[in-house]
Formats: sequence, C-alpha cells, structure tokens
Amino acid sequence: MELLSKTLKRITAADEAAASQALRHMDSLVKPIGSLGTLETLAVKLAGITGQKTNEFDKKCIIVMAADNGIHEEGVSACPQEITAAQTINMTRGITGISVLARHAAAEVFVVDVGVKGHLAADGIIDRKISHGTRNMAKEPAMTREQAIAALETGIELVSELVGKGYKLFGTGEMGICNTSTSSAVLMALTGLSAELAVGKGAGLTDADYENKKNVIRRALEINQPDKNDVLDVLSKVGGYDIAGMAGCFIAAAYHRVPIVIDGFISAVAALAAYRMNPLTKSFMIASHCSEEPGYKHAIEVLGLEPMLNLHMRLGEGTGCPLAFNIIEASQAVMKNMATFEQAAIQDDFLVDIR
Amino acid sequence: MELLSKTLKRITAADEAAASQALRHMDSLVKPIGSLGTLETLAVKLAGITGQKTNEFDKKCIIVMAADNGIHEEGVSACPQEITAAQTINMTRGITGISVLARHAAAEVFVVDVGVKGHLAADGIIDRKISHGTRNMAKEPAMTREQAIAALETGIELVSELVGKGYKLFGTGEMGICNTSTSSAVLMALTGLSAELAVGKGAGLTDADYENKKNVIRRALEINQPDKNDVLDVLSKVGGYDIAGMAGCFIAAAYHRVPIVIDGFISAVAALAAYRMNPLTKSFMIASHCSEEPGYKHAIEVLGLEPMLNLHMRLGEGTGCPLAFNIIEASQAVMKNMATFEQAAIQDDFLVDIR
Repeated sequence: MELLSKTLKRITAADEAAASQALRHMDSLVKPIGSLGTLETLAVKLAGITGQKTNEFDKKCIIVMAADNGIHEEGVSACPQEITAAQTINMTRGITGISVLARHAAAEVFVVDVGVKGHLAADGIIDRKISHGTRNMAKEPAMTREQAIAALETGIELVSELVGKGYKLFGTGEMGICNTSTSSAVLMALTGLSAELAVGKGAGLTDADYENKKNVIRRALEINQPDKNDVLDVLSKVGGYDIAGMAGCFIAAAYHRVPIVIDGFISAVAALAAYRMNPLTKSFMIASHCSEEPGYKHAIEVLGLEPMLNLHMRLGEGTGCPLAFNIIEASQAVMKNMATFEQAAIQDDFLVDIR
Repeated sequence: MELLSKTLKRITAADEAAASQALRHMDSLVKPIGSLGTLETLAVKLAGITGQKTNEFDKKCIIVMAADNGIHEEGVSACPQEITAAQTINMTRGITGISVLARHAAAEVFVVDVGVKGHLAADGIIDRKISHGTRNMAKEPAMTREQAIAALETGIELVSELVGKGYKLFGTGEMGICNTSTSSAVLMALTGLSAELAVGKGAGLTDADYENKKNVIRRALEINQPDKNDVLDVLSKVGGYDIAGMAGCFIAAAYHRVPIVIDGFISAVAALAAYRMNPLTKSFMIASHCSEEPGYKHAIEVLGLEPMLNLHMRLGEGTGCPLAFNIIEASQAVMKNMATFEQAAIQDDFLVDIR
C-alpha cells in the first residue's frame, strides 16, 4: 500500500513549457497549421509527458498482464479457462498476435503471470502470481483489498524496473479468459453504465450466453456493492489481477513521465481506474484503436481520449499498441525532419517564369 | 487514348481463389475468428489483388502528382499559386510532410510535374508537364479532352514503369494549390452532391472566402455542364492534371494487380473517377485515413471503402499512405508469423495442475 499511495501522490502534471515549445516548432513547419492533425497534437502531448521537445523512442515494450478469473464457472465465456495459461505460454514462444505485431514494431513483450491458474513451466514469463486466479465475483469478492493492492504494485514495480532499463514507450496488454466480464463490471461500478451498454459478446458468445453474461455481471455488482468512490474497493470486488496490474502500469508511467498506450476495452478500463485514482495520469496515456467491444467507447469517452486507429479489432493482448507506436514515432519524424517555412523558402533561381 | 482504353479494358477481377486461401489461413490462426478485424480483411484483400496468399512489400512508393489550377485567379485558396512549384521542389529535397513520413515507412516518393506553372529547375522531378497549369474552369473548360487523357496516361505509364522496376505497393499523393476546389467540382459532377457538403475550407479560408469558393465551383459546373456519365468530360472540364494523373495510377494499379493506397480528399476523388471508368479498379484500392475535408467521407462512401486511420489530417501530399503502409505490412506479419491453433497447442507438461 505504501508504494501505491506514495506513487499516486508523487505524480505531477504534464510539462506545459515543453508542450508549448513543441507546439511552436510544429507550427513553424512547412504545412498549413494543424493540417497533420493528431500527428501534431501527439507530438505536443509527448513533449508534455517527457519534458523534451522531441523524443527518441528507441526502447519500447508492451507489458502483458495474464490472470484468470473465478467468474469463469458461471459460463460467461465461450473459451475453456486453460486458454489463459496456454496463450500466456505462447506469448513467450513469439507466436501470438501481440508477439507478432510487437516484433513488427521492434517492440519487446514482457509477459507477467499476475494470477494465472496453474504453474506455468515456461521460460520468459515474469512470475508475480498473486493467486491461482481470482474468486467467483458472482458469489463473493474476486479478491481481498490486499490482493488488489499487490496487483497494482506489481504494475508499478514492473514499469519502474523497465524505465530503469531504458524503456521509453510503453504499451499495455492482457491475457485472461473472462476479462471482458470483469472489465464490464468495473466500468459499470465506476460510471453507472448499464449492462446493455457495458457488456459485449466477447470472443463469440451465443445470444443466450450473452444474456447470461449480463445477468452474472449484474449479480456480481449486486452481491458485492462496490463503492464507486473507492477504486480499490471496485477492483478488489469485481475486477481482475490483470486490470489492477495494468492500472498500476498507468500510474507508474505517469509517475516516471513516460508515454503509455491503451490497447482495447480491458486496457481502457484499467486506464479509467488509474484516472479515478489520480486524474493527472490521463496526460500520460495515449489511446490506440477503437475496440469492437461496446464498453470501450464509453470508457475512452469518460477518459476524454480519442483512438487513432479504426481497425475493428477485439483480440486484446495489447495488439493495438504496436500499431500506435508507429504513429507515435511518425509524429517524432515530423518534428525532427520536416523543414520550417524559413528552411523551405525556395531561392528564386529554382523558380523560373513564376515570380 | 489507346493506352487508356486498352488498360481499362484489360483489368480483371480480384483473385477469389487466392483470397479464399488467405481467409482459410487467417481463420486457422490462434485467435478468435475475425478478432484482428481490418488486419484480417486487409490480408484477404491483398491476396485477391496479387494472387498470392502472403505478400512481401519490400519496394513501396508514393507517386505525387503536382499541377496548378487556373481557378486560382478566382481567389478560392488562401495560398499564393507559387506554393505549388515551391513545395514540388521541396519534395525532392526530402523536407515536406510526405518526404518525412515516406522515409519513416521506408518508402520512396516519386514527384511528377504533370502541369505545374513555371519551369522547375530541380533534379529529381519527373517532368511530364502537359501545360503550365489548367485554364480557369469558372470561365471555360479547365483542359481539353486530349489533355485529360494525357494526364491519365501519364499516371498509367508511371505505375507501369515502377511495377517493372519491382515496386509492389503504391500510394497516391498530390501537390497543387486549389485542388480541393477541383476535387469538389469533380465530386459534385460525378455524384450530384451539393456544394455545402462537397466543399471545405481547404488550408485556412475565412468564412467569406469559403462562400466565394462554393459560388465559384457552382459557377464552374454551370458554365461547363460536365456530363456525369462521361468521366473524361468531367475531368477535363472541372478537374485538374493531378486528379487525372492519380486516376491513371489507380487504373494502372488495377491492371498490374498491385495494391494502391488512397490518401485524402483529392486522392479519393481521383479513385472515384477511376472507379467510374471501371468498377473493378476498386478491388485494388485501400483507404488510409479519414481526411478532415468534408467531401472525403462522401467520396469514400460512394466507393464503399473505409479508412483505417482517424488522425484529423488534411495536408494531402500523400501523407496518409505511408502510415497505412505500416498497417498493410502488419497484416502480412500476422499472416506469416502467427501460429495456427495446431502449432500453438500446448503440451501437457507445460501446464501443471490444470488439466
């Protein structure tokens, strides 16, 4: 708890001076002002985050939080629970969606077992298991308050370590069967959104299973009565280790002043949890793609962020992040390599018959 | 005319067999079916274009068509006409938006003078000047039918040459002060859209100038009475050399079965012109970003395509293309490097205590 509260307290606002400096430079480049849209606002935001007018994101990574959810026994997912463990291992084999897309973006993937059911005998998984999955939130709190804090602090510690190793751009991902259910529950608890708007069909539910999923989530909220003004209460009662772990990543990124990218629905809900714990965290977050999960739009709107990519994706794992990394880096290419109007002025001898 | 009509006639449909093969492979990968959204549909489309299940886009380029427009004398742009020549030269210096973003994507830029006013004494510009800008379409046809054909055939010849040199992925860009005016006029002529919906403020017009721009475009259409069923008539009367040249690129890309990316408004209108000349061309086009120019949305909807990027850009030059190239290449990374469910099956000895 000490690490969490200390980190939350020490977050400071974005650097307005650096952001203004970046904006002045952007406005001096040889183009109509604002015509590069998000590439421009992104460059300004990144300067505010790091305090540097331009940035080199040579070391970048996606942290994938893997965990199981006790709610699985209520039949809210079309997938067997073992998929969490199998895909967590597959991430270390470099063959999952996030593995492939991260490699395409020259980013690394750090896979964290923050609560997968079973012992994973595979190299390359960071073992920070809190327990073998959460409890069934439809019957009791998913975890204790201490366990939620442990998950948050795991995220904080990992980002801090990686910042120490020189990583400058972070993405957030997850692996955990049933984590659209926990994300919907957390979103509903934090914002009062209805199940109709917050709950999606996840990875291929039938209509009947979808009705069941909504009912189970409603029941979890009714039984646990999470206090919307106490994010730790919400996360521990109806959240998951992955969501809490990612929320810790967002908090630590803000503390260390490094940009951190939101992936899809689960990631956006974790970002929202971090934002509710300290609104300053938002200045350090970048939205990537507009997830197909219906709750995503609401979460990102409450955050006041806008996704850059419209790719109808709903895989999770962090897959939107490496695609956003390329756009983030493009914004820096513009800042560094485009000429100013002054530099671009054409000498008269180039232009015959015009002037 | 012979080259244009011959090329248009010889375009054949996308390769359904290759597309199906790509879809089968995509559906076998270790993820819920369809969960990678546009990365999946893109991979299927690319297979249909090239006839190959997977593709390597090692050589890629953006063709930038530069030309002036006689309509400039009506005060429809906030920019002096000399900017066309200056920025065309600056593209060869590697300092404009498209230069920088293309380099970021490891793509080349080919700058074509298809009708810039003035002699451009700079190396690296492909000189295919048809005339020193078009005529003022508010008073007379912008060009002759022969000039429109020449511009289209310039685009066809260039793409054919570059395909011969091994380029496998194309983007389209333009430089030409007043080309949002000509694009609006072509869009209105081809689709009957009103000036209110088709005309935007371009690069920084005042409200009064915006009203004037709409009136000038309405007048150009009234005076010239372009025949909406005769694309050549539309392009020659109210188009520009850049639009016609880009339309030629879209036609040639379809003929040579290479993917070609649409940038913003002007590029989308050129794509629409090509589509109206032969609807099969559409299967070879990929939309990149949603331009802020109001006419873009209508043009892309008529084409039945959907942009992948939501970046509020309105610079033109082809700047959306290199950003889309990265997503196109990501779709191929998924096809080549993600494991199938079979390959991803986890051996029992990895999973202790689960099964």
